[in-house]
Amino acid sequence: MGDDIKRVGRELIHKGAIIDVYTDHMEFSNGHHADWDFIHHDGAAAVVPVLPDGRIIMVRQFRNALERETLEIPAGKLDASDEPGVACASRELEEETGYRSDKLEWLITLRTTVAFCDEKIEIYVAENLVPSRQHLDEDEFVDVKAYTLDELKEKIYSGEIQDSKTVAALLAYEVKYLRR
Amino acid sequence: MGDDIKRVGRELIHKGAIIDVYTDHMEFSNGHHADWDFIHHDGAAAVVPVLPDGRIIMVRQFRNALERETLEIPAGKLDASDEPGVACASRELEEETGYRSDKLEWLITLRTTVAFCDEKIEIYVAENLVPSRQHLDEDEFVDVKAYTLDELKEKIYSGEIQDSKTVAALLAYEVKYLRR
Repeated sequence: MGDDIKRVGRELIHKGAIIDVYTDHMEFSNGHHADWDFIHHDGAAAVVPVLPDGRIIMVRQFRNALERETLEIPAGKLDASDEPGVACASRELEEETGYRSDKLEWLITLRTTVAFCDEKIEIYVAENLVPSRQHLDEDEFVDVKAYTLDELKEKIYSGEIQDSKTVAALLAYEVKYLRR
Repeated sequence: MGDDIKRVGRELIHKGAIIDVYTDHMEFSNGHHADWDFIHHDGAAAVVPVLPDGRIIMVRQFRNALERETLEIPAGKLDASDEPGVACASRELEEETGYRSDKLEWLITLRTTVAFCDEKIEIYVAENLVPSRQHLDEDEFVDVKAYTLDELKEKIYSGEIQDSKTVAALLAYEVKYLRR
């Protein structure tokens, strides 16, 4: 199958703030050629922060791409493409929520949109949370609130929570930690 | 919070095969300005096809963005941005797997990567599957195979399945249909 599709060229179209845009020149085993889109992203990490009472800390923020606010698990992009995911998750947890954790466990790895983008998100479960201090980036505006997993599942199945990393992470936590 | 961040301009950078690339000019309540990336995608639909014995039909295909094959639920982009998700899901199910369903039920809606892209995927569960005929697009190369949900969960928690729509959809199916 990898033999049926071959990339014969890659052309940089645009270097953006957090992504690079390429046109890939593809060749197929049937002799056809096509130009495919490719977006490079350095990668990200995210965290399911679980309070001792089982509630999960969520962040609400304005998302320009959707032109509305979204409710998500804390996340952020890697400082550099070789930053370990667990370091990034730990940092974003403290920066966005004001909690620290000494117990982060890898849960799942996601590729957000495989048809055209290489973005990878490493997702962790954070327990043993202790209050620290929220310190957002200068242009970051985030509201923080804790919800029960039942409340969050209701929001997933009603369509209120749609962010893919958040849906996948919350359900992966439920299935792995609470249902076995 | 929407008041803290305002888009004051949008500039088309590139029209790709399945995405359009923009630079958005943003203004913050603290007086700062920044350029943010925005990718438009027309949207997609996907389907969790459940056989009478409970196994789920999956597709394996080469993904150029990841430079490897991936195991995913059947999915495809909308023919036009106003095509109903359920019509797209039904079509992609038959084209990619060779099965038809007269019972598609909406499961969840996902936004693949909210930091920079508006792509939306409507995901359905398909039951009452009956064999039809696979008819792939000319440049589409896909292997089809059915797995038990336990096999697929093992692949999620080992990191073998990473595609976000697939992880979210399979776990959403498990939690909603099999665990209540």
